[in-house]
Amino acid sequence: MKSICLVEGVRAAGVREGKYGIALIAASGTAAAVFTKNLVSAEPVRLMRERMMAGTLDGIVVNAGNANVFTGEQGYADACRMAEDAAAVLGTVPERIGVASTGVIGRYMKMDTVTRQIREAGAMLRSDDSAETDAARAIMTTDLTEKHAAVIRDNFVVAGITKGSGMIAPNMGTMLAFVYTDATIGAPDLQEALQMAVTRSFNRVVVDGDTSTNDCLFCTATGYRETPDMSVFQEALEEVCISLARQIAADGEGATKLIEVRVSGASTEEDAATIARTVVGSPLVKTAVYGNDPNWGRIIAAAGRAGVDFDPFGAIIAVTDGTRRVVLADKGKICADNVMYPEALAEAASLMGGSEVIFEVLLDDGTASATAWGCDLTERYVEINGKYTT
Amino acid sequence: MKSICLVEGVRAAGVREGKYGIALIAASGTAAAVFTKNLVSAEPVRLMRERMMAGTLDGIVVNAGNANVFTGEQGYADACRMAEDAAAVLGTVPERIGVASTGVIGRYMKMDTVTRQIREAGAMLRSDDSAETDAARAIMTTDLTEKHAAVIRDNFVVAGITKGSGMIAPNMGTMLAFVYTDATIGAPDLQEALQMAVTRSFNRVVVDGDTSTNDCLFCTATGYRETPDMSVFQEALEEVCISLARQIAADGEGATKLIEVRVSGASTEEDAATIARTVVGSPLVKTAVYGNDPNWGRIIAAAGRAGVDFDPFGAIIAVTDGTRRVVLADKGKICADNVMYPEALAEAASLMGGSEVIFEVLLDDGTASATAWGCDLTERYVEINGKYTT
Repeated sequence: MKSICLVEGVRAAGVREGKYGIALIAASGTAAAVFTKNLVSAEPVRLMRERMMAGTLDGIVVNAGNANVFTGEQGYADACRMAEDAAAVLGTVPERIGVASTGVIGRYMKMDTVTRQIREAGAMLRSDDSAETDAARAIMTTDLTEKHAAVIRDNFVVAGITKGSGMIAPNMGTMLAFVYTDATIGAPDLQEALQMAVTRSFNRVVVDGDTSTNDCLFCTATGYRETPDMSVFQEALEEVCISLARQIAADGEGATKLIEVRVSGASTEEDAATIARTVVGSPLVKTAVYGNDPNWGRIIAAAGRAGVDFDPFGAIIAVTDGTRRVVLADKGKICADNVMYPEALAEAASLMGGSEVIFEVLLDDGTASATAWGCDLTERYVEINGKYTT
Repeated sequence: MKSICLVEGVRAAGVREGKYGIALIAASGTAAAVFTKNLVSAEPVRLMRERMMAGTLDGIVVNAGNANVFTGEQGYADACRMAEDAAAVLGTVPERIGVASTGVIGRYMKMDTVTRQIREAGAMLRSDDSAETDAARAIMTTDLTEKHAAVIRDNFVVAGITKGSGMIAPNMGTMLAFVYTDATIGAPDLQEALQMAVTRSFNRVVVDGDTSTNDCLFCTATGYRETPDMSVFQEALEEVCISLARQIAADGEGATKLIEVRVSGASTEEDAATIARTVVGSPLVKTAVYGNDPNWGRIIAAAGRAGVDFDPFGAIIAVTDGTRRVVLADKGKICADNVMYPEALAEAASLMGGSEVIFEVLLDDGTASATAWGCDLTERYVEINGKYTT
């Protein structure tokens, strides 16, 4: 097992027919969640914002194929109905079921399919490798890979699954992530830990800058193990969330490369994160990475429009693949240029050929740092989003 | 003649060799300018921010092929040198020359070519159709079309040229625009009029969301005609600026279609403009337009993340090509959907096949309105920016 079924007290199942899928996860415990900040939010998000106040869940049901957004009273009733169907299968009350949706926006739900698939999934609940795989696959849309993460500590496990590939610029939550731990943690502490982890993981991923209407991340603590040291738990939770967030970036629609932007020497972590997110989301940076072009002027131009005050001429900009590293600009001095420094430019281009490209932006304004993740922009992104209603 | 040479007192010339070009425009008068708000700004922008305080110009020199950004003291000296070369040709002082640059960021200038081209252009200054055409062509980079606009009123003319295709999300000025009038207008009044016109024209264009380091718009009033009614002048100036801004959107890198987003019924014009800009800049909206896909859920999702407070369920969303019009959603009711309203969806798709697609977003929150312009996102954008250092 590689993710949620490693956590004691978790069972899962997934069914899928074409683009329509249902994931059902049974796990009782204290629960926390974060949701999209998009003003237009999905009906299941509206429902869950109310119901998560209670801080407990017995299970989560998720459908793929229809995002259930802008569907008004009917969509809200459909989300309630999903909770009722799942509660009937799990032998609990609808108020203790988490509901999430992903797919096209602005279409009414086909509830007969949803209800049937929930019952089918209910009959298949189990705790093994195929169960977490089925659940992760059932909720994929334009995703090409299923996404799992787990961190095992001495006295607890934290693990999660996620989905997401396009409409990715999470602001508060992200496009469907489900994280579990067997530790005993009260709902308020869990909420606080989750909030902090999200800030440094999902909220640092940008695929296309379009924040989804359906972003949500649920975290359930089943309480099979004792209460951990909260700083150890926080670290483990962040590690799981960052792993899942990176997997979303790497599987961004049409992507061939993961881009990591590390900003350090900023006045505040928020400043560093804003610059990192702006650079990693810039279409010009993304296309340059696709073309193995160390066009670092686009990085400094993107940083400059981030709305953060910093000294551009105090910055060092470098590119690395994790092994080799080339400094492109150093405190106002150009270090890679087609006229004076063509070798540096060529070396930088060559190390951009791998599947991960890391840009370092070292500022001279303070000691705070932040990292953001994204992916390159390719013709395939246009094809996926231009040719299909997703 | 179709633009700046219609204005009395204006002469122009342009020379071009491969990607390197010089436009030279001679026109003495009061002058105003707006510049990029990108924290990282070009050296000529730094120079002009100081020199435009005086409010007078005798001419403007522009080079294409190198943006002269991040080039530090050397770049600043090169910008001064461009002003000196142009001043020598025009028989004035460098302080009365406007300087602008466009091209790649982070490369030192080849000043021998620049100086030679300025002299060549100086020998060719004239006031005819070919002169304004040469000037407009000399400053093109990834632009496919030259861009002119003119408005002729009873007692004055306003006309301009512009360039811009990528790195377009102007914030205050835009990627090089040069506007002229023969009216007599003091520099402070001209600055105020220009500021207002820019807000409603260039600042409403988004091609890729990347604000350039070199955006600038100069306006010179040669004073050959008397002082006009300022509200008539304001309207004419806005018309010229909007025409130029629309031409930039239509010629966005890789674009096949102009997208216009009209937001009305907003609380404030700023709210309406923010929503319009966010929708027109959304990669998911842009790719949907490319694919003739009336996926209006992406419009409402983009509006929802604009950071503006409005009632999504009070909104009417429609698409039109200027002749036919289809309502997609009406105050919370879905009107185009693959299950219940497939005819509306098909009709909407069919009217998106032209070269202009207009989305109307009618809110229920007030009486303010704003329009923004952009273009579709195609594989060609990726190709242009992934395969070449631009």
